[in-house]
Order: sequence, then C-alpha cells, then structure tokens
Amino acid sequence: METFFNPKSVAIVGATEKPGSLSGIILKNLLDIGFNGKMYPVNPKHKHVFGLNCFPSLIDIPDEIALTVIAIPAPFVLDVLKQQALKKIQYSIIISAGFREMGAEGIEMEEKIKQVAIENNIKILGPNCLGVLDNYTNFTTSFLPWERVSKPPKGSLSILSQSGAFAIALLDLAAQEGLGIAKMVNYGNRIDVGESALLPFLMDDVHTKVIAIYMESIDYGRRFIEVAKACSKKKPIVALKVGKGAAGIAAAKSHTGAIAGKYEIYKAAFLKSGIIEANGLEEFIDGVKALTMQNPPKRNRVLIVTNGGGFGVIVADYCSENGLEVTPPSPQLKEKLRNKFSRFYVVNNPVDLTGSASDEDYYIALNTCMIESDEYDAAIIIPLMAPMGMTEKVVDLITDTMKLSGKPAVICTVGGAFTMKIKQLFEDRKFPVYPSPERSARAMSMLLRRDLLQRGHAYTPV
Amino acid sequence: METFFNPKSVAIVGATEKPGSLSGIILKNLLDIGFNGKMYPVNPKHKHVFGLNCFPSLIDIPDEIALTVIAIPAPFVLDVLKQQALKKIQYSIIISAGFREMGAEGIEMEEKIKQVAIENNIKILGPNCLGVLDNYTNFTTSFLPWERVSKPPKGSLSILSQSGAFAIALLDLAAQEGLGIAKMVNYGNRIDVGESALLPFLMDDVHTKVIAIYMESIDYGRRFIEVAKACSKKKPIVALKVGKGAAGIAAAKSHTGAIAGKYEIYKAAFLKSGIIEANGLEEFIDGVKALTMQNPPKRNRVLIVTNGGGFGVIVADYCSENGLEVTPPSPQLKEKLRNKFSRFYVVNNPVDLTGSASDEDYYIALNTCMIESDEYDAAIIIPLMAPMGMTEKVVDLITDTMKLSGKPAVICTVGGAFTMKIKQLFEDRKFPVYPSPERSARAMSMLLRRDLLQRGHAYTPV
Repeated sequence: METFFNPKSVAIVGATEKPGSLSGIILKNLLDIGFNGKMYPVNPKHKHVFGLNCFPSLIDIPDEIALTVIAIPAPFVLDVLKQQALKKIQYSIIISAGFREMGAEGIEMEEKIKQVAIENNIKILGPNCLGVLDNYTNFTTSFLPWERVSKPPKGSLSILSQSGAFAIALLDLAAQEGLGIAKMVNYGNRIDVGESALLPFLMDDVHTKVIAIYMESIDYGRRFIEVAKACSKKKPIVALKVGKGAAGIAAAKSHTGAIAGKYEIYKAAFLKSGIIEANGLEEFIDGVKALTMQNPPKRNRVLIVTNGGGFGVIVADYCSENGLEVTPPSPQLKEKLRNKFSRFYVVNNPVDLTGSASDEDYYIALNTCMIESDEYDAAIIIPLMAPMGMTEKVVDLITDTMKLSGKPAVICTVGGAFTMKIKQLFEDRKFPVYPSPERSARAMSMLLRRDLLQRGHAYTPV
Repeated sequence: METFFNPKSVAIVGATEKPGSLSGIILKNLLDIGFNGKMYPVNPKHKHVFGLNCFPSLIDIPDEIALTVIAIPAPFVLDVLKQQALKKIQYSIIISAGFREMGAEGIEMEEKIKQVAIENNIKILGPNCLGVLDNYTNFTTSFLPWERVSKPPKGSLSILSQSGAFAIALLDLAAQEGLGIAKMVNYGNRIDVGESALLPFLMDDVHTKVIAIYMESIDYGRRFIEVAKACSKKKPIVALKVGKGAAGIAAAKSHTGAIAGKYEIYKAAFLKSGIIEANGLEEFIDGVKALTMQNPPKRNRVLIVTNGGGFGVIVADYCSENGLEVTPPSPQLKEKLRNKFSRFYVVNNPVDLTGSASDEDYYIALNTCMIESDEYDAAIIIPLMAPMGMTEKVVDLITDTMKLSGKPAVICTVGGAFTMKIKQLFEDRKFPVYPSPERSARAMSMLLRRDLLQRGHAYTPV
C-alpha cells in the first residue's frame, strides 16, 4: 500500500504542458511541492515535459516503475493498463472518469480493466478519482492547481473519501482552519483498493492519529466492520455517510455508481465497529477537529463558562440534546465561587460572568471548578470578546488552566475580526474553536462518543 | 415607541469620560456614529463630558427631555426614575444590571421601579439590557466600543433579543456577512416594553422587512400570538427559542430571570402565529439571510445543480430531511439536457456537471430547468470553485438566470480564499451563500416554511 503514497518512481501517462491537461497539472503539482521520487512523463507527442524526459509509452521507459498515474480519456485506459502489465508495474492510480458512473458502456469498460488488473496482480486506486495526497512524502496526484485549492499544513488527520469534490473541499477547509493533514485518499469508483484495504494501512501509519471517512457506500461489508473495529481501538474514526434518504441514494448512484444501501444497516455497522458518525459536513469537520486537538472526557458532566448568558442557555440546550449533562455545581462549590466573584455573576452551570467579565474571571472559574473540584469532566467555554474586560490574555489563562486540569475543553466564540484573531490563538494551542453554541456542544459530544465507543457503549442522545 | 429609536433629546445619566464607564461609552458611541438629536450628560461630578454641557441631575436640565438612558449601579436607578417622573420624561432605557436576575433583593428593586413607572406612565426598556440600535436614525445605547463590535450596514433586518450578548454577536455576524440591519432591540429583564409592544411597531416600520427574535420567554402569551399573527402576515418572523430542555430552562432563569416554560407550548404558539422557528444560532442567521435576500418558492420541488457530485448527494439527503422534494427531471427534460451536455455529465437531479464544468454549463442547466421548464420551484446551486473551468463569470450567469426565472435560489460553496471572493459576489447580488450542504438545504427549507405558514399550513419535515 505504501507505494500509492511514496512511490520510488512514477509514470504520469498523458502528461503535456498544455494548459488544462490533467496529467500536466498532476506533474506540475508534483514538481511544485517537491516530490523526491523519480518522475516519468509518458506521451508519444513530446520529448520533454516540464524539463523531464518524456517517453512514447510505458514500455519505452528504461527504468523500473513503481506506480502509474493514468489521467487520459476512459476508452484509452485499458490499453495503457495492458502495457503496464507487460512492464510488470504493480500499482496504478486511475484518475480518468467515464466509467461505471456513466451507465452500461462505462460499466463494461470498467469490468475489462478490473479483469486485466486481477489477471496481472495490479493494485488499482480509482477510477474516477483524484488519487492521493501525502503531506509527509510530498506525493500527490491532485489535478487541481494550488492557487485554487490551498494545501493544508502537515498534521495528524487522514481522509478517505469516495468523492473527489468532497476530498478537495475538505483539504481547502482544513487549510483554512489550520487543521493539519497526514494523508488524503480519494478512490472514486473504487474497483479495487477501498476503505477495507486503506484502514489497516492508516491504523499503522505513524503520522495518522484521526481518520475521517466520507462514504456513499462501503466496499466489503463484513471485512470493513472487522478492520474498522481493529482500527478504531487504536485511532478514532469519524464517518460521514451520505445517500441516506431516497433522493440521496439516487444521487449517490448517479455520482459514483454506489449502491448506498439501507441507512439503518450502516448505522448498525458504525456502532459495531466503533465508528463515530457525523451528521452533515460541519459536524464532520468539527468532530474531527475536536478529536485531533483534545482527548475524550472520562464522563459526561460538562461545565459551561461564559460572559454571554444567552449563549450559555443555548449551549445548555444543545448539551442536553447531545448526551452531555449540565449538572449544577454542589452547594460547596457554589459557595466557593460565590466568595470569589462579584455578586452580579451567576454561579451556577452555566457560570455566567456577565458583560463585566475580565480575563482573570475565566481563570478563577476554571481553576475552581475543573482543578480544585472533581465535579466536571469537560468544559465548554464561551468567551465573547466584545466587552472591554476581555483581552488576548484570556487565551493563555484558559488553555493553561485546562491543560493543568487534564480535562478536555472546546471553545465557542462568535464575532468579527477581533474574535477571529482570538480563535487563531486558541487553535494554535490545540483548543478547537466553534462559531456557534450548537456546534461547540456537538463537537464536545463527539469527544464523549469516542470515549463511549471505546468502552463498548452505544451513544444515546436524550 | 418611536421615541426609543429616534428621541429628539436624550439624557445620559452617569456619563463620564472615565475609560470603562458604560454611560461614557454610550455617549461616545452616539457622538461617533453621528446621532442628530440633542444629548445631555447627567453627572454631578462634571461640568462637561466629551465637550457637552453636563448637568448635576435630570431636574437641572433646562430643556425638555424625550428619553433617559440609565447605566448606573442598580441601587441608584430608583431615585433617578423618581426624578424623571418629576420632570415628566416619559421614556427610559435602563441599561443597568443587578435586578431580577440576581434573586430576591434584585426582584424587590425591580418591582419598585415598575411601580414608579406605572404610576407615572413611564415606558421602560430593560433593565439589564443593551437597549437599541437604529441604523437609520443613528441612535444607539450600545455600551460596546465599535472597535470590538463592528457596525453592520443599513438594511432590512430587525432584531429583537432578550439576550444582550446574543444581540451583539448577531450585529457582529451581520457586519461580517454583509447582512444589513434596520433596528436592534435588546430588552433584557423586560419589565415593560417587550415583544408584544415591539412587533406591531416593526410591522409598520418602513425599513424593516424581516424580523428575527431571540427569546428565552415571551412577555404576554395571548397578546404575543395575536400581534405576531398580524405581523407575520406582512413580514416574515424567525424565532430562536432557547431554554428548551431542563438544563437550558434552568440556565435561562439564571440569565434573565425568564420562566422559559414548556417548549411544546412555544412550538404551538409559533405555528399559530406564523412564526418560523430556527434550530440553533446558525439556522437562525441562515434563515434570516435567505428571507432578506430571496422570496419563498411556490412549491417544494427543488433542483440541485453542482460540479461536485458528493455535495449534490449531501444536499439531496438534507432536502429530504427538510421537506424539500428532489424530483427527477421528466424524460423530456432529461433528453433536452442530454443534448446540450457532454456525455460525462449526469443529467438527473442533482444535475452533476462534474469536475469538467464551465461557467456556461451552469447557465445551460438553470436556463433549461428553471426557465424553459416548469418542473422546479427553486434551486440549490453548488458551484465549487476549485476546477479551472470555473471563473468569476459564473456568478453573473447564475444570478441573472435565476432572476429571470423569478424563482428563489440559495448557493452552497465550500473552500478557501477564492471561494470567499465568489461568496461575496453572490451576496452582493442578493443570493445567500452557505458554507455547507446541510445549511443550504435548511435555509431553502426556511424559505419554503415562510410560504407554507403564509398559506396556513404546518411545516412537516419528512
């Protein structure tokens, strides 16, 4: 499997310098991000492409080739694959679209390719895909120019995605959010390598800490559950299952030819294999962000601290809806807080520091409730930055206290430019920030679900 | 009611130039945004505040005063109100906190104030509030400095909010989103003027086209339903009800002393009065944005057009969940599209223009399905901007075609800097843009709900 992510030598079939040529952009992207392996453009029309020697066919390459990248029109793919068999190249990423997703004729072409691959023991990623991005080996088969799609920083999240557009959008969002990526794999029609082969690989990948899967369908039901079960014991897996209702299932079929199947079966499979299911794109990204940055709480007792009472109320509502308990502080703890705070402050759960809050008040609340007391397992902290008492210092006060407590926290803050700056500071310190109360509560519940699933419990929101 | 938003003369009680003084910031904010009425600082310690003559007490002001703004510690408010009664000033915005939300002692103070107000026929907004912002008269009682909270542009949305922090965050978000605001009112503990008095006023306000209400509780049940019913016939009202579950209800009580009451009763009241209920802060803002920019669809048949198949699938899922029908095109319409498009494109619903899409393809799809055909009532359009075929031109092609169709559309697009630029262009043309498939489907469903409620139908998601 390593070859797909770090090939010693790669042939890019169809590469030209012509603007808009997919193969050309792939080669250019590889050169741009500084891939270290050997690259061989293949195209009978050229002698040189981007300064590299170009070969008329795979057969003509004098060296050994580990991997081919094929991004030519679908009807020509079969011939290339036959040549590849002759040259005994064992791995191929087929970017080209125009197969199963196009109906009968496409299915036939796809089946022929499958046959050749099986007969010659060629491992295939695709077709109808974007292939891979490895942020540590600098290998990618993305055909999207970097000025359109930002490259995210190195990090610990790996993405498996049946949808190319989705994978791309996720990379772009990750770059925007400063969320670090290890590997991205998009396998489109998935005639060979899919989730069941990739999960065990990611399970042992040193750079991957959290795995995110976008799926319309899965490749092999039983096998998938088995490998996911093993993998999720080591690393959290978050899945976004799409194609749930009739309209979505029909859309998925048109999209990657996927038979999306009954949603209930997927739900049961996720539970069995310890996969955390996300509801929608935002919960998917939010949960993944929380899981890469914070640890699961030990239990579900959440403290809410805010200087915006209304936000505290909304977070409390969504905590209840998402299996998190907003338990009131004990009389002793209340008394302790009461003695430390202005009488205007509401010493309850949420702790409401009101519009008069200062940075220091957040420290006092968290130190008292999360370190000196054992009544809470996690905190949702909502520092609104509009009041004058709030400054940048609140970031270190909150993050240092929470780190000392050893308990997880997520941050919710809402606002304009100044708030965005504060968000960045929090996330630099690995505390995930969400722009709405409901998203912060759901992200915390994703952390809780990780803990529940690890201990073999189902997640049952109230 | 007009006096609260456009007072001829206003006394700001307690104003000083001391940094951090609430009254001081209020006066400074008024001077900064160019309020045209007369302003009278009241403070026995000063002769001048920010260059204005300052008076020792209300009684000492030689001129007539239309409105007082009181932002001094709670225990001193009663005396000021008694003076105000002597001077026959009929309106007051009490910013000060420290009343009902503080328990027994605070309740007592609040009751006394109420008594004086009733005896002297003084209309009160507050206490424990931020008061008002009127973007057309440039009057505000906000005590938050503009460098912390951006002022949104003039527009057609008016906000009623029990929570001050929420009102502020909403203004900040509106500024960020370029969503124009007419009026904002935050009434906190609401001892007098509340939703039931403000709604009829906003109903007749020429600048207000859409009304957004954040509520923990409502002031007068029956009266509210009555006025909301009348108002929603003219203008859409979107409500965010917080304090739903036990934890949220308890939090709301601590926050504004609100008895949040049974959520089911609110749900029924909303339905009766034609109010669109939002689930969470984002749906609230998203729905309001859609309603200010687009008209409701005539029926619920939605066309999805995208160049990112995966996104089409997710939108289809969330359409189904939110009462929108993703009906396939008729054989005739399919044939028409088939003849105009590359054979790679999926001519179904979603129309999937694939990664090869050009700007023009969006025009073709929308013109064929939304103008030449009558099979769809609305469109959710998902132009992903990563592929090279997509340029800025797509914005005018889409918006011009949809305007010509007379049908509503919302846009979903996901990505980094280039995508953000495209978002701005769409919203300048009054097409709302959402950063996730689920949010675009829910926003469209808010438009649909406006239509259903206007026709007296309940909204029943599948």
